[in-house]
Amino acid sequence: MTFAATVLTLYPDMFPGPLGASLAGRALREGRWSLDAVNIRDFTTDKHRSVDDTPAGGGAGMVLRADVVASALDAHRDERPILAMTPRGAPLTQARVRELATGPGAVILCGRFEGFDERLFEARRIEQVSIGDYVLSGGEMGALVLLDACVRLLPGVMGAPSSGEEESFESGLLEYPHYTRPLEWEGRTIPEVLRSGDHARIAAWRRQKAEADTRLRRPDLWERHVGARDRPPSGAQRQKDD
Amino acid sequence: MTFAATVLTLYPDMFPGPLGASLAGRALREGRWSLDAVNIRDFTTDKHRSVDDTPAGGGAGMVLRADVVASALDAHRDERPILAMTPRGAPLTQARVRELATGPGAVILCGRFEGFDERLFEARRIEQVSIGDYVLSGGEMGALVLLDACVRLLPGVMGAPSSGEEESFESGLLEYPHYTRPLEWEGRTIPEVLRSGDHARIAAWRRQKAEADTRLRRPDLWERHVGARDRPPSGAQRQKDD
Repeated sequence: MTFAATVLTLYPDMFPGPLGASLAGRALREGRWSLDAVNIRDFTTDKHRSVDDTPAGGGAGMVLRADVVASALDAHRDERPILAMTPRGAPLTQARVRELATGPGAVILCGRFEGFDERLFEARRIEQVSIGDYVLSGGEMGALVLLDACVRLLPGVMGAPSSGEEESFESGLLEYPHYTRPLEWEGRTIPEVLRSGDHARIAAWRRQKAEADTRLRRPDLWERHVGARDRPPSGAQRQKDD
Repeated sequence: MTFAATVLTLYPDMFPGPLGASLAGRALREGRWSLDAVNIRDFTTDKHRSVDDTPAGGGAGMVLRADVVASALDAHRDERPILAMTPRGAPLTQARVRELATGPGAVILCGRFEGFDERLFEARRIEQVSIGDYVLSGGEMGALVLLDACVRLLPGVMGAPSSGEEESFESGLLEYPHYTRPLEWEGRTIPEVLRSGDHARIAAWRRQKAEADTRLRRPDLWERHVGARDRPPSGAQRQKDD
């Protein structure tokens, strides 16, 4: 089964865009995934082809109409999950990316202007997803990010199949730092342990670095990681720290 | 002064990409910002033009060489901040976006493969930035996201200048939900308060919705918001809840 992406957008020309180059682009040409960019405007029914209207209650900007977006969505609904890219959504995680990548694909709704009419989310089963705590000009960038993250995990897309396992977030930690040739650069050398050939020492050093960097740079991730580690699945090692 | 972006990448063809369309594209053509995509490979010195090498200590994938990347960077250093897009970086926030957008621009380094040789960050003043807790095929998507977020805040880019103020994250809260015509859709109506014309009631309802949605969907943001609210700048309202 091929991972099938359908993107509902007012800017279909943005796709595949950067996904047409590099690994994702090659995989697209090889048929390892498919991408269909659909113009929401094609589902309007009035002569002005309007997709948006002013916000009820006043305020700046425009809001995407529920009826038009729902028509576009209903024409593409199947067994795939439907995701809407919006800053009001749940933060995208690598775990969710991995789930999506093993599924049939996704129908992705790209917001614009002030966002979608909220009734859309009451009337349809849509997962609201945010790629981060910043505001973009539309959901298209989010769709590109989401698809890039998924596509690189599809079978046969990444050069080395093991690349996925030691990466940032896969273990709940940031990835350890990397070094490569030249051995000496601007008076700085590669840490001795990495040149030792001692695989156990190297693994221990990398683990310690990953933990130290996560603790320092991302106390939020570190807390979650420690929490998960201290919460034994069997209950056998239950701790009493309350 | 124009916001000047220089992107150092192995895939210069990915730029402007989606930034060439819509608001950002128009602003680019109008000269409200500039974009220079530079190929890191042009700064190699060997006949194979190699930018990467195997990781010291072993493991899958390839690592970007510090010497090559530093050469590319040094050729473009000026008063602008230098940002490297990497999952090991600090999470991008709307506050940082706003700071960057009021500055002279940015030099943006896009990682590929397993990442950069860590010595680069010891030897140069580089801000490591992550757009979210997921892994992408390279830093290019991150650069596109970062630039989109910045460019829309530049003077004259967004249609309505007030659009920026009530958005998600600007107040530390998610944005309130939106509604627009038609008044009735699939048996669902627009909340009565939004049709009342009573601006004070509408503002109160929106505030309450923004708070309720943030609390429910993003307990992490909510905690920070409440913490900031309860931490009086003067100390006059200090609370004792420990």
